[in-house]
Amino acid sequence: MAKTGSRSFELASKPRIVSSASYVGKKEGEGPLGDRFDVIMKDDTLGLKSWEKAESRMFESAVRVALSKVERTSEDLDCLIGGDLLDQIVSAGFAAREIRSPFIGLYSACSTITEALMIGGMLMDGGFIDLAACAGSSHFSSVERQYRFPLEMGVQPVPTAQRTVTGAGCMLLSREAIGENKQKCFQNIIVSAGTMGSVEDFGITDAGNMGAAMAPAAADTIAKHLADFGRSPCDYDRIITGDLGVFGSDMLFELLEKRGIGIRSVHNDCGKLIFGDDKSVVCGGSGCGCAAVTLASHYLPLIESGKLKRILILATGALLSPVTSMQGESIPAIAHAVVIEHRSNGGSER
Amino acid sequence: MAKTGSRSFELASKPRIVSSASYVGKKEGEGPLGDRFDVIMKDDTLGLKSWEKAESRMFESAVRVALSKVERTSEDLDCLIGGDLLDQIVSAGFAAREIRSPFIGLYSACSTITEALMIGGMLMDGGFIDLAACAGSSHFSSVERQYRFPLEMGVQPVPTAQRTVTGAGCMLLSREAIGENKQKCFQNIIVSAGTMGSVEDFGITDAGNMGAAMAPAAADTIAKHLADFGRSPCDYDRIITGDLGVFGSDMLFELLEKRGIGIRSVHNDCGKLIFGDDKSVVCGGSGCGCAAVTLASHYLPLIESGKLKRILILATGALLSPVTSMQGESIPAIAHAVVIEHRSNGGSER
Repeated sequence: MAKTGSRSFELASKPRIVSSASYVGKKEGEGPLGDRFDVIMKDDTLGLKSWEKAESRMFESAVRVALSKVERTSEDLDCLIGGDLLDQIVSAGFAAREIRSPFIGLYSACSTITEALMIGGMLMDGGFIDLAACAGSSHFSSVERQYRFPLEMGVQPVPTAQRTVTGAGCMLLSREAIGENKQKCFQNIIVSAGTMGSVEDFGITDAGNMGAAMAPAAADTIAKHLADFGRSPCDYDRIITGDLGVFGSDMLFELLEKRGIGIRSVHNDCGKLIFGDDKSVVCGGSGCGCAAVTLASHYLPLIESGKLKRILILATGALLSPVTSMQGESIPAIAHAVVIEHRSNGGSER
Repeated sequence: MAKTGSRSFELASKPRIVSSASYVGKKEGEGPLGDRFDVIMKDDTLGLKSWEKAESRMFESAVRVALSKVERTSEDLDCLIGGDLLDQIVSAGFAAREIRSPFIGLYSACSTITEALMIGGMLMDGGFIDLAACAGSSHFSSVERQYRFPLEMGVQPVPTAQRTVTGAGCMLLSREAIGENKQKCFQNIIVSAGTMGSVEDFGITDAGNMGAAMAPAAADTIAKHLADFGRSPCDYDRIITGDLGVFGSDMLFELLEKRGIGIRSVHNDCGKLIFGDDKSVVCGGSGCGCAAVTLASHYLPLIESGKLKRILILATGALLSPVTSMQGESIPAIAHAVVIEHRSNGGSER
């Protein structure tokens, strides 16, 4: 509850993540994390008439699967918090129409899932909600045609390109332990703290190089987080960025090393993890769904089992639009960070 | 702090609105509220190269003007909370790049300003922030070309059309009283409670009839709010909707009367107020900026002076996109409500 710095916060009541769910595309299912996802689509339209309808259905399903793991339904939700990359966040909005709980719509590009966990954690710690779903999604095909080129054009990716992840991830935040004795839910995961991001812009105008545009925002939030809490990178088992990819991750290391902060030994990036060594995705994955499904299905089980005791996760978002790019603007970016820990840590220093 | 119902909340610490600012277009300045706005643009591009750049500048300026009234700067802000109607909320995002405080980006269409006040109020009551700017904007010209037709086509409005307000409004939330003895700031305004909206959809597909699409969401939130707090409409000096316009307001009355709730005597709509009797706007104003500037410059001074003791304000948002409309989807809508009171009320029953 206490403010620890101008932009960081602690969650004294330690809200729990009691379950999570991930819903991904075929290509993501064929990657190294494939066996961890809850649902892998065979057809990226799910038999619906558009990719946009399919993305909204994925979003809704991820929320429902996370609820079902703790034997709850959408009627038990105090609110749904989330967003996506489509104009007017229609994937989230149309999913919220079906879920029917109160809805807090966010836009923070690919930083949405940590913005949602941050807001959800603070509202729960403030006593306003008891059970909330935090969710984010993206879909390769809906995003390509909105931000870049029609798929039918077959445009070649540039050397700094990343592939938008087709996936929706949901984390269920709860004030109380629920779902005891259920195999698929979590008993040991808490959200203990975080740091709000501010918008950084190093003047990069190449929308084919999002990693470079977002690295300064990630560096800024990590540096401020460590300073606010008086910690060093080794206080975390992992510092995880959302979708900087190969190129953006290298840039992040250099930016932080200029400030005397070395994170190479504890860093990983969901965009680098999700497609493994697949060269067809060039620099890795991206999109709201990238950090959401990797956190939901890869990192949370590692914390639940105690293999990881404390992580700092920062999803990273580029706040451009096709219109601003055409108007010659550079790419502003943001990264919101949350600390997720094993309950035995109790949120205190190790 | 206490939850009062499944979707309503009370703010025990009574966060204050210490100042507000509004920045509007020429046509809004010529309307009945003209003398209350802080800045009226002479040129809707502000001399910049695009309407989008002008809208972002308006957004930034509204935040800076609200801060200057209490002799604060953006460096004093714990966070900026807000959004707008443009794809990827670029007006807010690019403004946040200049403001440089932590940024919580929201998308809730024209319900943004009350979503921002709701989130800001809860984060302040939870002890996470001390000073926050809540802001929203819209711009007639940037919105027309994004959602409807290029202005150059000169398309005739339909009989249920509303005109998007060119305007940016900002409210400054503060834990402590600040700016005492300053003429232009507020000493007596608190945010005491609110009700989170959920997404309602009555199957309306006509994007030229937003009032009708949004009225069910407003009716739902008002009915739930009154039930959660055990209040009746006469417990409020005004129940104010954001931008239902003439047609949507009539529909709201009928929907509530079917539930036995009569609000005609206390209701007003920012979309009906802002352009007065101007028939060229057909059913009134709309857009994120509509409720934001009307609250900032018309209603808040009435509360400060004690002419109004307690209002319920619900900005109303239609969560469609041009893509979903083209794909045949109906228009989901949402309305978030906050209670704003004169401090002498203390948030308690009158």
